[in-house]
Amino acid sequence: MAKTGKKRSKKIGLPPGTLVHIGEGKVSAPRITVIDFNEPHFEEKEVKTIDECFLFRDKPTVTWVNVDGVHQIEIIEKLGQCFGFHPLVMEDILNTDQRPKMEIYGDYLYIVLKMLHGGDAGHSVEGEQVSLILGSNFVISFQEEKEGDVFNPVRERIRTSKGLIRKMGSDYLAYSLIDTIVDHYFLILERLGDQVELLEEELMTHPTDQTIKKIQAIRNEIAFVRRVVWPLREVVSNLGRRESPLIKETTEIYLRDVYDHTVQIMDTIESYRDIISGMLDIYLSSVSNRLNSVMKVLTIIATIFMPLTFIAGIYGMNFKYMPELEWRWGYPAIWMVIVFIGIFMVVFYKKKKWI
Amino acid sequence: MAKTGKKRSKKIGLPPGTLVHIGEGKVSAPRITVIDFNEPHFEEKEVKTIDECFLFRDKPTVTWVNVDGVHQIEIIEKLGQCFGFHPLVMEDILNTDQRPKMEIYGDYLYIVLKMLHGGDAGHSVEGEQVSLILGSNFVISFQEEKEGDVFNPVRERIRTSKGLIRKMGSDYLAYSLIDTIVDHYFLILERLGDQVELLEEELMTHPTDQTIKKIQAIRNEIAFVRRVVWPLREVVSNLGRRESPLIKETTEIYLRDVYDHTVQIMDTIESYRDIISGMLDIYLSSVSNRLNSVMKVLTIIATIFMPLTFIAGIYGMNFKYMPELEWRWGYPAIWMVIVFIGIFMVVFYKKKKWI
Amino acid sequence: MAKTGKKRSKKIGLPPGTLVHIGEGKVSAPRITVIDFNEPHFEEKEVKTIDECFLFRDKPTVTWVNVDGVHQIEIIEKLGQCFGFHPLVMEDILNTDQRPKMEIYGDYLYIVLKMLHGGDAGHSVEGEQVSLILGSNFVISFQEEKEGDVFNPVRERIRTSKGLIRKMGSDYLAYSLIDTIVDHYFLILERLGDQVELLEEELMTHPTDQTIKKIQAIRNEIAFVRRVVWPLREVVSNLGRRESPLIKETTEIYLRDVYDHTVQIMDTIESYRDIISGMLDIYLSSVSNRLNSVMKVLTIIATIFMPLTFIAGIYGMNFKYMPELEWRWGYPAIWMVIVFIGIFMVVFYKKKKWI
Amino acid sequence: MAKTGKKRSKKIGLPPGTLVHIGEGKVSAPRITVIDFNEPHFEEKEVKTIDECFLFRDKPTVTWVNVDGVHQIEIIEKLGQCFGFHPLVMEDILNTDQRPKMEIYGDYLYIVLKMLHGGDAGHSVEGEQVSLILGSNFVISFQEEKEGDVFNPVRERIRTSKGLIRKMGSDYLAYSLIDTIVDHYFLILERLGDQVELLEEELMTHPTDQTIKKIQAIRNEIAFVRRVVWPLREVVSNLGRRESPLIKETTEIYLRDVYDHTVQIMDTIESYRDIISGMLDIYLSSVSNRLNSVMKVLTIIATIFMPLTFIAGIYGMNFKYMPELEWRWGYPAIWMVIVFIGIFMVVFYKKKKWI
Amino acid sequence: MAKTGKKRSKKIGLPPGTLVHIGEGKVSAPRITVIDFNEPHFEEKEVKTIDECFLFRDKPTVTWVNVDGVHQIEIIEKLGQCFGFHPLVMEDILNTDQRPKMEIYGDYLYIVLKMLHGGDAGHSVEGEQVSLILGSNFVISFQEEKEGDVFNPVRERIRTSKGLIRKMGSDYLAYSLIDTIVDHYFLILERLGDQVELLEEELMTHPTDQTIKKIQAIRNEIAFVRRVVWPLREVVSNLGRRESPLIKETTEIYLRDVYDHTVQIMDTIESYRDIISGMLDIYLSSVSNRLNSVMKVLTIIATIFMPLTFIAGIYGMNFKYMPELEWRWGYPAIWMVIVFIGIFMVVFYKKKKWI
Repeated sequence: MAKTGKKRSKKIGLPPGTLVHIGEGKVSAPRITVIDFNEPHFEEKEVKTIDECFLFRDKPTVTWVNVDGVHQIEIIEKLGQCFGFHPLVMEDILNTDQRPKMEIYGDYLYIVLKMLHGGDAGHSVEGEQVSLILGSNFVISFQEEKEGDVFNPVRERIRTSKGLIRKMGSDYLAYSLIDTIVDHYFLILERLGDQVELLEEELMTHPTDQTIKKIQAIRNEIAFVRRVVWPLREVVSNLGRRESPLIKETTEIYLRDVYDHTVQIMDTIESYRDIISGMLDIYLSSVSNRLNSVMKVLTIIATIFMPLTFIAGIYGMNFKYMPELEWRWGYPAIWMVIVFIGIFMVVFYKKKKWI
Repeated sequence: MAKTGKKRSKKIGLPPGTLVHIGEGKVSAPRITVIDFNEPHFEEKEVKTIDECFLFRDKPTVTWVNVDGVHQIEIIEKLGQCFGFHPLVMEDILNTDQRPKMEIYGDYLYIVLKMLHGGDAGHSVEGEQVSLILGSNFVISFQEEKEGDVFNPVRERIRTSKGLIRKMGSDYLAYSLIDTIVDHYFLILERLGDQVELLEEELMTHPTDQTIKKIQAIRNEIAFVRRVVWPLREVVSNLGRRESPLIKETTEIYLRDVYDHTVQIMDTIESYRDIISGMLDIYLSSVSNRLNSVMKVLTIIATIFMPLTFIAGIYGMNFKYMPELEWRWGYPAIWMVIVFIGIFMVVFYKKKKWI
Repeated sequence: MAKTGKKRSKKIGLPPGTLVHIGEGKVSAPRITVIDFNEPHFEEKEVKTIDECFLFRDKPTVTWVNVDGVHQIEIIEKLGQCFGFHPLVMEDILNTDQRPKMEIYGDYLYIVLKMLHGGDAGHSVEGEQVSLILGSNFVISFQEEKEGDVFNPVRERIRTSKGLIRKMGSDYLAYSLIDTIVDHYFLILERLGDQVELLEEELMTHPTDQTIKKIQAIRNEIAFVRRVVWPLREVVSNLGRRESPLIKETTEIYLRDVYDHTVQIMDTIESYRDIISGMLDIYLSSVSNRLNSVMKVLTIIATIFMPLTFIAGIYGMNFKYMPELEWRWGYPAIWMVIVFIGIFMVVFYKKKKWI
Repeated sequence: MAKTGKKRSKKIGLPPGTLVHIGEGKVSAPRITVIDFNEPHFEEKEVKTIDECFLFRDKPTVTWVNVDGVHQIEIIEKLGQCFGFHPLVMEDILNTDQRPKMEIYGDYLYIVLKMLHGGDAGHSVEGEQVSLILGSNFVISFQEEKEGDVFNPVRERIRTSKGLIRKMGSDYLAYSLIDTIVDHYFLILERLGDQVELLEEELMTHPTDQTIKKIQAIRNEIAFVRRVVWPLREVVSNLGRRESPLIKETTEIYLRDVYDHTVQIMDTIESYRDIISGMLDIYLSSVSNRLNSVMKVLTIIATIFMPLTFIAGIYGMNFKYMPELEWRWGYPAIWMVIVFIGIFMVVFYKKKKWI
Repeated sequence: MAKTGKKRSKKIGLPPGTLVHIGEGKVSAPRITVIDFNEPHFEEKEVKTIDECFLFRDKPTVTWVNVDGVHQIEIIEKLGQCFGFHPLVMEDILNTDQRPKMEIYGDYLYIVLKMLHGGDAGHSVEGEQVSLILGSNFVISFQEEKEGDVFNPVRERIRTSKGLIRKMGSDYLAYSLIDTIVDHYFLILERLGDQVELLEEELMTHPTDQTIKKIQAIRNEIAFVRRVVWPLREVVSNLGRRESPLIKETTEIYLRDVYDHTVQIMDTIESYRDIISGMLDIYLSSVSNRLNSVMKVLTIIATIFMPLTFIAGIYGMNFKYMPELEWRWGYPAIWMVIVFIGIFMVVFYKKKKWI
């Protein structure tokens, strides 16, 4: 989770725009799918080589190229040259430790997002970088890993022409992809919320030494999600302000809706942070309270038996002249004293509410 | 209270504008009431089907349609189609986990508010989503639940033509509804304030292990109210700035008044937060102080009786040649030593202010 | 102190502008005084009925009407009607739980301030609402309570024509009233400062369980003053920016001076907050240090006497064959062992700097 | 240090512009020196009465009047009348509890600064108010106390015509004075930095009960410096933005340099604050760690000797039929048991890393 | 690390622009290298005297002068006079305690950066000041120390004409130098990240008294890096906004890329700070938990053996009439009582989950 920035150092000294893949290596070849559509027309195919994509470039229809896996540099490089993307864009697609951001390059927009996975018990939240390039009639999306393709519902909507997606342009497609990703965040938040609730219960009923570590772990998870959502909010807000003519007015309202979702996610995150910081206070005070009750047990036992042992010790002395020892009722009398002291102490501590 | 965002995930992958009710399900049918008025005229009726409302749409009089219960999707859908509302507005009305917000849509405004219930001892504060759509001659309000209709005083004022409400337009009606909701917040705050005071007293007189949990609980309640009021303030401020021509100049001053109330509520919330954070400090130090006093009791008893028991132990030894044992006044002398040591210790601890 | 917002709830559902007095009730009648002056002329009288004031309304001279006590609704109402004030202004004058604010209404300004009382030992700081209405040739001031009239020095200056007050217009009079109130804050701050110093000394010399409660109490007092001064600063700053033509350029410089004072007060408050938060740290560590020293006493006594008591216990055993018991010098030898162990422990703890 | 605002209250009710000296009283007469120069010309003299200064007023040369001591109201008053300064300026010069600020008055600027003294061990940082009035051909400076005249280097530079000072106008002279004061802050910071380092060492090697108080004391010192530098930064920034024509373009670059210094000072202060807040954490945990080690000593000794004393107690019982007592090797056997238990406990605690 | 501001005081009273070297002294002579290039041409040489550089000044090619070591004032002075730099620039180059900043001087820009070294275990992060002066056809760079020349990769790229560097102007060269420095920060962050991970592991498995000090040490390191990166971000952002015509439009996009890197670094730093503050909480609670377990051991042993010792003490008393002592099965009975009490206590503590 604290891995951001790792391995970045291997790029020191290289000229800008040098394509180096920063992230975990993959062996299998990237999978490239192309979907080309407008309202009446729909075409979908999985291509073997990237060159097949270029046929769609100059068509008036909306083309969506999805690249699963960014570890094969040549593919990214070829794509960039064909579409005329800036080398820095290509570089950023390969560096999977980017923050969410949006950059305006003349006739295309470059958007970096983070897809989130995991978040249920035992699995920490992990981010997968998703890059989008939005042109006037195309969207190119790059996903880091293949596991669980989150864009399937969008694909399905295009295939079945459900909703507006076939009627609108490439900007609406880009919006749909962003929306899908943001909707996934709610899933992550729900899982984290469940864990927070479990932790709250654990804290109230049987806090252990491990509780604090779990609290910190989930706090770090939430901080991670926060660091992803925070810049995303700005990205969506900027898109919604339509600084680029690529975003049409009809899409603006949908982007505003996504923006509302990001604000709502931030809100939920803040409320989790509040709750967790309260849990820390409760935990620390529960540790102190447990110490208090341990010490009370010790104090009660010690203060009852120490005087009694002393009395027993007195009459265990071997002085020649100890008149009490000779008394007929000395031993029972001592027992009475002992019982009296014991009862007195118990009553005393009862009054002090220690027992 | 930490339920925001829950169940949201079931919308993943659906196209925007798909109407899905997010919130707790209801069985009974929604209740729809229509009030139509201008200065001389007044009409009120409860309608069975939503179609009856549409008669009022094109009248010049102010029409207020109130929908109690948003779980029946068809009603909302029909209403939206008739009045020509954007699908995203309809979607947001059904999602009862929105933040307070205002959106300007050409010829109507969409406003989301939160009505607050509860807040007295044993009942946590709960939010109910209230959506308002303000057009040039109508207000449509959607309430999530039916329990306790907060808009009754407004209805009464319209019926009896009390105040300005019959003389002003739909924007004044919307203001009146918002004002009623904000006024209710003061009630919640007063209840929370009472609880804070009770807790302060408990903390001062007899803090227990539960006190910290109560403090945290009320802290979370207040954080919840804060999250509701904070965005509301912005909503009211934006309305007051009259960014839409739907808000007339005569209403601006009233909205400014509501804005002042929200600022005052935030102020009160901040002061509660201050007090509660101070209570946490007092609680933690009271735990430490109690530990201190427990340990003092133990230390006093132990340090008095340990030396005495040792002395008794000495003269319990069975050495053959222990001259003191033979002395006539050995035993009384030992008692004197014991009493002296005891008194010395007590005086010593008195001086140290431990007793 | 946490009473802001109390009783506000009794206004729920009333139309805006409904006059309800919110605050502590009074029995005696409000006292109304009128001062009318310009450079050559001066007139002062206490009026029985509010109607007498209206004679001064249209005179070119500066008229200052001061109303002591705002619990009699009719007076406020009549005044408002006569001068043509907005109903919301009248409402706010009666609600004595307003935050300091300034509102511009065409030809008059409405200003809410808080006069502060108390602040010395045993007396918590209390706020009294002072409302000012500034017109082109009049100032109307409303004070909540009568106790100690803070405006007397201003009155005296008008009577004796000291300073510029008779030469300038109504805006300068309003400035003088505000200035007087702000100057009183310095008094409150000095008293709080004295208490902070006393607490610092208590903390350094003999902290008790009560110290933390005193620290929190004064923290709350300071937070209260802060909540009053913070919005006031903005009020004065807005006045100084001369957003209304009622404030003349010659008065601007004086308002800037008052603004500087409010900034200085905030500065002092922040420094008190810093000091108090430091006191909390010192207090908590002093509690821990005291526990440490209690435990050291216990540990020293226990670790010295436990081994000794054990040794005494050994030779108190009744085994038949214990050669040491028969030795001539057994008993003195044991004493030597005991003394040696005792000295050793004391030296050991000296080295550890525990004694 | 928390003295800001003290004695201010004695001005309550006075009309603005009333000259009252707020600060510590002085007996000796203020010392007034005049330096008059341009590139070829230089004249310096100490004047007896303020009237001698007025000769220089209308000369085209740059005149620097320095007043050491502001407790004699008449001098300030005369000066103000002669140069036509606003009464509020005169008032502020006498109130030595101002925050650093700059005010633009038509043809002159009024600047308040704080000279800092002390800051080495045992001496707390103290501020001395320095007021500057900058006109087109004069600078008048007011110093509160005489101790150590910080402006001597500037005087020397004028006398010897070192640097640009004789070639530039009055604004450069004002800059030089401000620069000298800001440079002195570095000295104070170095001293505080030395103290922070000493405290860090004390904390690492031998923290005592006093350490926390020293930490708080230096924290307060740093907070004091911060409150002085923070507004100063704004003053210098405003000067550098040349809002008044009195600041010439050639001086702007030098003011930017001073501004950089103030930013650097703030940076250093923030880093000290960070370090000190870290020291607090270390201190609190060191107190807890010491408690831990005290309790370990107690626990080790108690848990070793309690079972042993119990065993010895058993064989100290006087039952008639206790076969072990009669055994030949009973006593040595018991010793073996005791030694075994002792060794076992020591090994046990070694394993637990307590010893 | 807290050395910022040190030795600055020796400049008090000197006129601005006086060249004094502030930093650690050096003996060896500075090394000056000149690289002169455009697309076809390349020349590199190490010069003995600074005068040789001036030949390149008026050539249209891009000239890069690199000065290693800023302790020889004459060299800096000469350079400044020849190129006509402002004395304040020269002064700032010599003061190696500057914050990163950028200043626009007519036809050249002055940029201060910090190169970071160290950061691995046992070595604290250290900053080296790098000053850049960017003119229309030259870049002059000043490095404080010689150890490890970070600009070598850039030199190599110029020599081999790799990337765009030979095709672009002086602003691209300046960008390349800044980029190289920022890339080095990632290296430092990775090292700090490794240390944070090691500390986390230490904290989880075997926290000691030293752990808190290590946590604070790394916290201070990170704070140091933060103070360097924070102003740098602004510098790069300002450069990218092309406030000076010296930055060409083609370079803007690259500067935006560097800006993204600085934002990413700040992000990583913030995440480390979060983690470290969580570690502090875990550490403090681990100290408390250890105390708890120490006290449990003591309490268990003490509460078991104190009653037993008391019982043994009873039957060690020497009363004449103690019937139990005479019983045949008295001794075994007592043992049974003792064993029963012992088992009872162990079961009791098992139930309490203390064992």
